Amino acid sequence: MNISVNQERLSAELDTLATFSDAPAPAVTRVLWTARDLEARAYFQILCSEAGLSVRQDALGNIFARFEGTEPHLPAVATGSHTDAIPHSGRFDGCVGVLGGLEALRALKSAGFVPRRSLELIMFTSEEPTRFGLGCLGSRTMAGVLSPEKLRGLKDGDGIAFETARSAGGCSGELETVRLPEGCYHAFVELHIEQGPLLEKAGLPLGVVAAIAAPATLRLTIEGEGGHAGARLMPGRRDALLAGSELALAVEKAALSTGAIDTVGTTGFFQIHPGAVNSIPSRAQIEIDVRDIELERRDEVVGQIRAAWDEISERRGVSGALETLNADPPATCAESIVSASQNAAKALDLPFQKMVSRAYHDALFMARLCPTGMIFIPSKGGISHRPDEYSSPEEIKRGVEVLALSLAELAA
Amino acid sequence: MNISVNQERLSAELDTLATFSDAPAPAVTRVLWTARDLEARAYFQILCSEAGLSVRQDALGNIFARFEGTEPHLPAVATGSHTDAIPHSGRFDGCVGVLGGLEALRALKSAGFVPRRSLELIMFTSEEPTRFGLGCLGSRTMAGVLSPEKLRGLKDGDGIAFETARSAGGCSGELETVRLPEGCYHAFVELHIEQGPLLEKAGLPLGVVAAIAAPATLRLTIEGEGGHAGARLMPGRRDALLAGSELALAVEKAALSTGAIDTVGTTGFFQIHPGAVNSIPSRAQIEIDVRDIELERRDEVVGQIRAAWDEISERRGVSGALETLNADPPATCAESIVSASQNAAKALDLPFQKMVSRAYHDALFMARLCPTGMIFIPSKGGISHRPDEYSSPEEIKRGVEVLALSLAELAA
Repeated sequence: MNISVNQERLSAELDTLATFSDAPAPAVTRVLWTARDLEARAYFQILCSEAGLSVRQDALGNIFARFEGTEPHLPAVATGSHTDAIPHSGRFDGCVGVLGGLEALRALKSAGFVPRRSLELIMFTSEEPTRFGLGCLGSRTMAGVLSPEKLRGLKDGDGIAFETARSAGGCSGELETVRLPEGCYHAFVELHIEQGPLLEKAGLPLGVVAAIAAPATLRLTIEGEGGHAGARLMPGRRDALLAGSELALAVEKAALSTGAIDTVGTTGFFQIHPGAVNSIPSRAQIEIDVRDIELERRDEVVGQIRAAWDEISERRGVSGALETLNADPPATCAESIVSASQNAAKALDLPFQKMVSRAYHDALFMARLCPTGMIFIPSKGGISHRPDEYSSPEEIKRGVEVLALSLAELAA
Repeated sequence: MNISVNQERLSAELDTLATFSDAPAPAVTRVLWTARDLEARAYFQILCSEAGLSVRQDALGNIFARFEGTEPHLPAVATGSHTDAIPHSGRFDGCVGVLGGLEALRALKSAGFVPRRSLELIMFTSEEPTRFGLGCLGSRTMAGVLSPEKLRGLKDGDGIAFETARSAGGCSGELETVRLPEGCYHAFVELHIEQGPLLEKAGLPLGVVAAIAAPATLRLTIEGEGGHAGARLMPGRRDALLAGSELALAVEKAALSTGAIDTVGTTGFFQIHPGAVNSIPSRAQIEIDVRDIELERRDEVVGQIRAAWDEISERRGVSGALETLNADPPATCAESIVSASQNAAKALDLPFQKMVSRAYHDALFMARLCPTGMIFIPSKGGISHRPDEYSSPEEIKRGVEVLALSLAELAA
């Protein structure tokens, strides 16, 4: 089959999507159910309709655009990713998989391809944990890992209840309907930027993902004691910032302690109260991210962090319980999907390597529902979650071509 | 002279003043030239006019309320404090000196006292450094320590220029007119809560301040490198939060290293960017407060912090220059004022102790213009800059009585 991807159209659409942002360009900030997120959703639905796909949205705002197959009763082949973006990040993370997925379906249509199984493009709700502290809200709920009850109990940083935010985001219906049965899809393939430096270093245009690292997220509110920075003497202070500082350094130490290159630990959120130069910090809110491709090693690092916190909090006389927001197992990609992507790369004469995804993706949860795989394209300088995140139009085009051929094989 | 302080009226006025707040009660947030600050200023001016004082405001918003003496050409005797409040602080810091000062003047009037020298009550602009990073804007400028040129160069955290903020705050006129000549006042006495635990521990209602500790404020923006928390491997990270955490711990270590109880060091402001759990912090903004009653020891601690930062920033590959926002010398209170306050305490049969002020106050800068002293009343639990800051109505009343008799002696 001769696939023709319209590189200019796709670049222009990625440019337009990037304008729906609460940060000045080139930075992108697009948080769940903000006005910018709703604009991006509307734009995506318009493009899908224009492409002749039938569009539906579930109660959680996951959007499904369908290219009907000749045997529509068969489990469909799905692709997709997310369009939400953490504060001051870039324009390619997630968006390449959503708009690139759309371009793949358009290219297949143009090529006259008629799928036996239907093809579905999914825009997942809130892959990023920005608003409710938990990532992959859409795919996690679809896979039954996150219950509607737990969803309803979530609050954002401003204290807004999940259901209030969902309603303001234009979603209605019972959350119980979001969960999908195992086997509902025949396959899932996600196209994504690597977000790491390996493909660029190896000079390869393509990565076929064999496994997705296991993420864990911890949250903590440290309660110490405030007071006047001048008048309160040093002995007996219970400074929440200093306790938090020690914990952040302990996270780094624990991640380095495994000696494995695949272990990472980051304190990405750190906010103190009251935050005045002449006032001792009485409270610190902290979120920690730990990942590894090996579950046991990841959990050992989490254990080390917990032990460090026990020691720090007791010694400094501050309180606060380390809450586990999520601790997901890693996912292994299905041989059938890996094979389809490899076949596609070979057909297009593109060199590739098999690799691990250190970032997590909606694919991590889709892997619970059906055979799942991922296709990576290079990230310039290995940079992601930053305004200077970049993959070239040619790199994106090649990824879309591989995705299209993979979908074609799986849906044939 | 028989002084009668109206404790109920003063308590009610302190209650009303506390309602002008951007934080829910009992917390008080009242930042320079916000709507709440303007309300507090208007309220104060109304009370002063009702008390028969003549009110004027200078170009920086310092407010002067005058009780004319029989020899109005003589340098006046002044008292006063501030009404601005750092985020989530209490209702007594500063306010006791402003409304208590007003009550002292009213009590003197009611007692039929006719001063030879005029009495002036001053509400100083922005004793707290919250908005422009520098404390005592009003008194610092009056004393000529802060130049109009430097004032005009200030920006707040939102990038609003000082002159824009000043104009929005209803202040006009040349900043050059704010500076006062040495000798313009005969004396200055500030009534204030202790903000420390010593009076309560000693069971004393009164402290007569002999010296005010020397504050220094440092500011720093750390520039590191961001990236995806999952995909960016640990080696070679340049995490701004971790560098800042080490610095905050170095501040504590430096303050403790002197072995002197009077040395304090605090990192009170600490903000990271972008602040998402799955993103490596690329930037940290930090403000540090160091104080001591001995100037050399204070400067040695600052030197240690600078040395620590040089080492941390080089080792972690991050950049950022430690800027000195202020590094003021300590002030010694004038014997004449200390003596007047001691005489007042004795006349009222109140036990007291001579003490050091570890917090700084507008008195630190008024000491450059005229003989200066301070009167302290107890702070419950030594707590200040917190919503639970507390001094009882009786304690405040006694402080006002001592202030009134001190002013009477100095103005007679």
